[in-house]
Amino acid sequence: MALVFHKLVSVNEALKLLEEKLGGIRPLGVIEVPLLESLNKVLAEDIRAPIDYPPFDRSMVDGYAIRSFDVAGASDVTPVQLKIVGKASIGSVPESHVGPGEAVEIATGAMIPRGADSVVMEEYVVRKGDTLTVYRPTAPGENINQAGSDISAGDYVLRAGTLITSREIAVLAGLGISRVKVYRPPKVTVFSTGVELVPPGELLATAKLYDVDGYVITSMLNELGAEATFKGILPDSYDAMKSAIADALEKSDIVITTGSTSAGYGDMIYKVFRDLGAELIVHGLKARPGKPTAIAVKDRKILFGLPGFPLSAMMNMYTIVAPVIMIMRGLEPNVELPKVKARLPFRFPAGRGFMELIPVQLVQNVDGSLSAYPLMTGSGSVAGIGLSDGFIAAEENREYFDENEEVTVNLFSPSLRIPELNIIGSNCPGIEVVLRVAGLTKSSRVISVGSMGGWIAIKRGDADIAGTHILDENTMQYNVHMPKIMGLENEVYIYRGYARRIGLLVKKGNPKNIKGFEDLLRPDVVIVNRNKGSGTRVLLDMKLRPLLKGERPEKAING
Amino acid sequence: MALVFHKLVSVNEALKLLEEKLGGIRPLGVIEVPLLESLNKVLAEDIRAPIDYPPFDRSMVDGYAIRSFDVAGASDVTPVQLKIVGKASIGSVPESHVGPGEAVEIATGAMIPRGADSVVMEEYVVRKGDTLTVYRPTAPGENINQAGSDISAGDYVLRAGTLITSREIAVLAGLGISRVKVYRPPKVTVFSTGVELVPPGELLATAKLYDVDGYVITSMLNELGAEATFKGILPDSYDAMKSAIADALEKSDIVITTGSTSAGYGDMIYKVFRDLGAELIVHGLKARPGKPTAIAVKDRKILFGLPGFPLSAMMNMYTIVAPVIMIMRGLEPNVELPKVKARLPFRFPAGRGFMELIPVQLVQNVDGSLSAYPLMTGSGSVAGIGLSDGFIAAEENREYFDENEEVTVNLFSPSLRIPELNIIGSNCPGIEVVLRVAGLTKSSRVISVGSMGGWIAIKRGDADIAGTHILDENTMQYNVHMPKIMGLENEVYIYRGYARRIGLLVKKGNPKNIKGFEDLLRPDVVIVNRNKGSGTRVLLDMKLRPLLKGERPEKAING
Repeated sequence: MALVFHKLVSVNEALKLLEEKLGGIRPLGVIEVPLLESLNKVLAEDIRAPIDYPPFDRSMVDGYAIRSFDVAGASDVTPVQLKIVGKASIGSVPESHVGPGEAVEIATGAMIPRGADSVVMEEYVVRKGDTLTVYRPTAPGENINQAGSDISAGDYVLRAGTLITSREIAVLAGLGISRVKVYRPPKVTVFSTGVELVPPGELLATAKLYDVDGYVITSMLNELGAEATFKGILPDSYDAMKSAIADALEKSDIVITTGSTSAGYGDMIYKVFRDLGAELIVHGLKARPGKPTAIAVKDRKILFGLPGFPLSAMMNMYTIVAPVIMIMRGLEPNVELPKVKARLPFRFPAGRGFMELIPVQLVQNVDGSLSAYPLMTGSGSVAGIGLSDGFIAAEENREYFDENEEVTVNLFSPSLRIPELNIIGSNCPGIEVVLRVAGLTKSSRVISVGSMGGWIAIKRGDADIAGTHILDENTMQYNVHMPKIMGLENEVYIYRGYARRIGLLVKKGNPKNIKGFEDLLRPDVVIVNRNKGSGTRVLLDMKLRPLLKGERPEKAING
Repeated sequence: MALVFHKLVSVNEALKLLEEKLGGIRPLGVIEVPLLESLNKVLAEDIRAPIDYPPFDRSMVDGYAIRSFDVAGASDVTPVQLKIVGKASIGSVPESHVGPGEAVEIATGAMIPRGADSVVMEEYVVRKGDTLTVYRPTAPGENINQAGSDISAGDYVLRAGTLITSREIAVLAGLGISRVKVYRPPKVTVFSTGVELVPPGELLATAKLYDVDGYVITSMLNELGAEATFKGILPDSYDAMKSAIADALEKSDIVITTGSTSAGYGDMIYKVFRDLGAELIVHGLKARPGKPTAIAVKDRKILFGLPGFPLSAMMNMYTIVAPVIMIMRGLEPNVELPKVKARLPFRFPAGRGFMELIPVQLVQNVDGSLSAYPLMTGSGSVAGIGLSDGFIAAEENREYFDENEEVTVNLFSPSLRIPELNIIGSNCPGIEVVLRVAGLTKSSRVISVGSMGGWIAIKRGDADIAGTHILDENTMQYNVHMPKIMGLENEVYIYRGYARRIGLLVKKGNPKNIKGFEDLLRPDVVIVNRNKGSGTRVLLDMKLRPLLKGERPEKAING
């Protein structure tokens, strides 16, 4: 019997429920690691400087350590002569003391000898044997980096909860800290489920699909700083599934499965979670894509059953898994995706009771602003995952996004590479070929929105080129009527691209002896159709019309 | 003898020279790795889809596969009855064929049985035994995800030179690709040099410093996607240094040393590079910080001798090492640091013949805009490295940045956490204590610009609170005269913070029997002074003035 999602829970409610049932989501524990291994982990202790930095007064230049009072009147015409009494080298305590009328040669970074209050740069002196002639005065403290001037012993330099990057490592190393207390990154085990799944690299039988989720979820977890292990596709047997998940739960903080959560058939995951003694706290999420989601907790561990469609599973990673991972790592729950502002090219419904994450492609308008084209590929798409620059989020109480509305785009990459050439409209594999020959593949972007969408993109200033094949039924000519309709007369050029040869593809040897369109009407012939509205289908329907004598093609043809 | 930088080379010239001498900087080679290991590597091949995606027509919903023509007129009042002839399950080729008046039960993702042209959702039907009552019409293609509609076999889906993130992994997995050709990441060996250096964790003798560079450079390289190995501090012997670097050069694509490049004393690195048979192509860089830099090439390998000051070494990493690493990885040379626009709070000199990278701290002004406070800490600072949010770059031909000039800030972190409370002015360790007690450490930022800088920050709207101790010599009162001077009357509140007790710290037992300021004039007494301009020094000078009877304190006191 089909399982129905009786009570959908919002993403925020789900996080609150998790918080409640776990007695708070929090960092998992503290480990001590060598400094270099702390990179990209989160500091679990406040760091107070154990020493001054620099630990001693040091010279900032190559020159001579002197007493500023001695050279108070020095100039090019009234130079002052000092006696060189020694040398201060890097890494050693200087043996010489600088008395009145004396100087000590000193290197950048060397310790200032006692008695000196400044360093004169070697550019402003002339040395002859032990005699130094100084042509400039110095101020007390000049060219001296004073002990503790950068960091004083006891200063709080880094706070618990700081993500350790190379910069934090610099500060820690400078203070002599070789081992660091960090939060232990969460251990996550990932499984795919689904009888239809085949691992990439193996042969794909009909009606089967390659497993995407296991790979993308594991990679995302690694990107999020978790320690993720992918354990492959779970066998389609209750017992095998249960024992694999039980074992994973033993060894990890979080177990994530994908697939087998939709209400239709495979409700096995819910049963396995429950039978493992976990409390099912979410059973359907008010998220689109991402509704068929199960969340269960056992002791302080979490089981996520994510939907099988890759885009759905990924979006759930952003909305509900990532915040949990972030908190467990010791960070704030919001994932640090970079953001840009963009405007939407058209109005479309979004939200309507669900938190909806919509992947978008960005293009730069002629006026320099950004437009975000929603990828209407559906959650079953994998191409859309690769094509999108980021996503926009619709809140639950939103009904639609308006044309030209300004939205915040969460970027997948920190820096946005704006394509120089935007080709928006009806798509054709030939465009890719042309771009490759022209060496433009990296600097261009092709967005498929159909012929009409292309004309609108030209009108908005988003598109540089639009592919179009719109038939004017009055003149039976393509495209040339459009500039007038769009108010773009004298503003666009229409170039004839190329013609297509369209034919019927038959089995080798043409066993059914198909000669023309009339054969398509035979009951023993099945045709694989192009979708309605496509140019080919329009042509086919046109050609069939006289043969059908008023009958609807859907009725007369096995398509 | 001191080594002088005779001919400084700009960063761009240095990159051009590298390009020339290496016969082009380019990716190092191609390796094939399992899909999950390709994360964060760069694709070395164009990927054409080997299969359609989806590979078969599949249902997008749970429901029944039907012929749309059969239910053309279906509605709540005129439902249509169909005969259920089978079931299409996920992962199997459906055994049943949908003839006129027939339906096949189907799950989301299952293959569409032959004969059906659409799927009616289970919400719009009622099933009784083998009879299906349909209350809604369907359009041909409805709820069907057509084979190849997402990706057609032969489509170019990913291009060589693409950084592989979790999203690219999703696309590759979906197409069944289990092993990927990627560019081999560059192998880099890192050494520190300097007799003054001690590894963090060991005891620090006087005049010694903890090694920062080895740790920060290695971490930065790992962040940049190179395979970096830190081999510690090189011994201070020509032979040992030469053999260690020769060995590293054998095993790596790039060898980086830090320190021993300044013109004063330690010119050992240049000699070692040359004696290893490498051609020294850069010997001094028009970069600030970062001038004392050596670059040499041997065969197709590069030796970088970076300066010893951590900030100098880091800035060179951004300007010259990172572009080389990026190209060798197969990416564009520019490092993908996120950027924001900000305005500068005051005018300051920058550039003047050098490419200058200036670390900045960002604060949000009351009007919502960002101000970038340059960290004037000097290249010897390590605190500055940790405190800065990013850096601004001054081109060689620039003379200064102007007050309120808009600049682009290259951010160290992808997302900027704007502190809620900005405390800008004269600093005091007590502020940190107060913030900790108040639980405000995470949401606040303390920027030290001195008392006057604090007043200017208040005036600009950057600072919420400013620490100040400016004495009015006319009234001998602190701070209360400032609002009038700044034109901020009735706009600021002055709260009295706390008073300091100032004293003289002497050796245990006070062996020199120091009782007061007059003892400081004794020739056998040496005082460790606060810097000129500090409140304490002003007080000390004031107290000494009557005792000195017109003599300058620098002359009368051993400071």
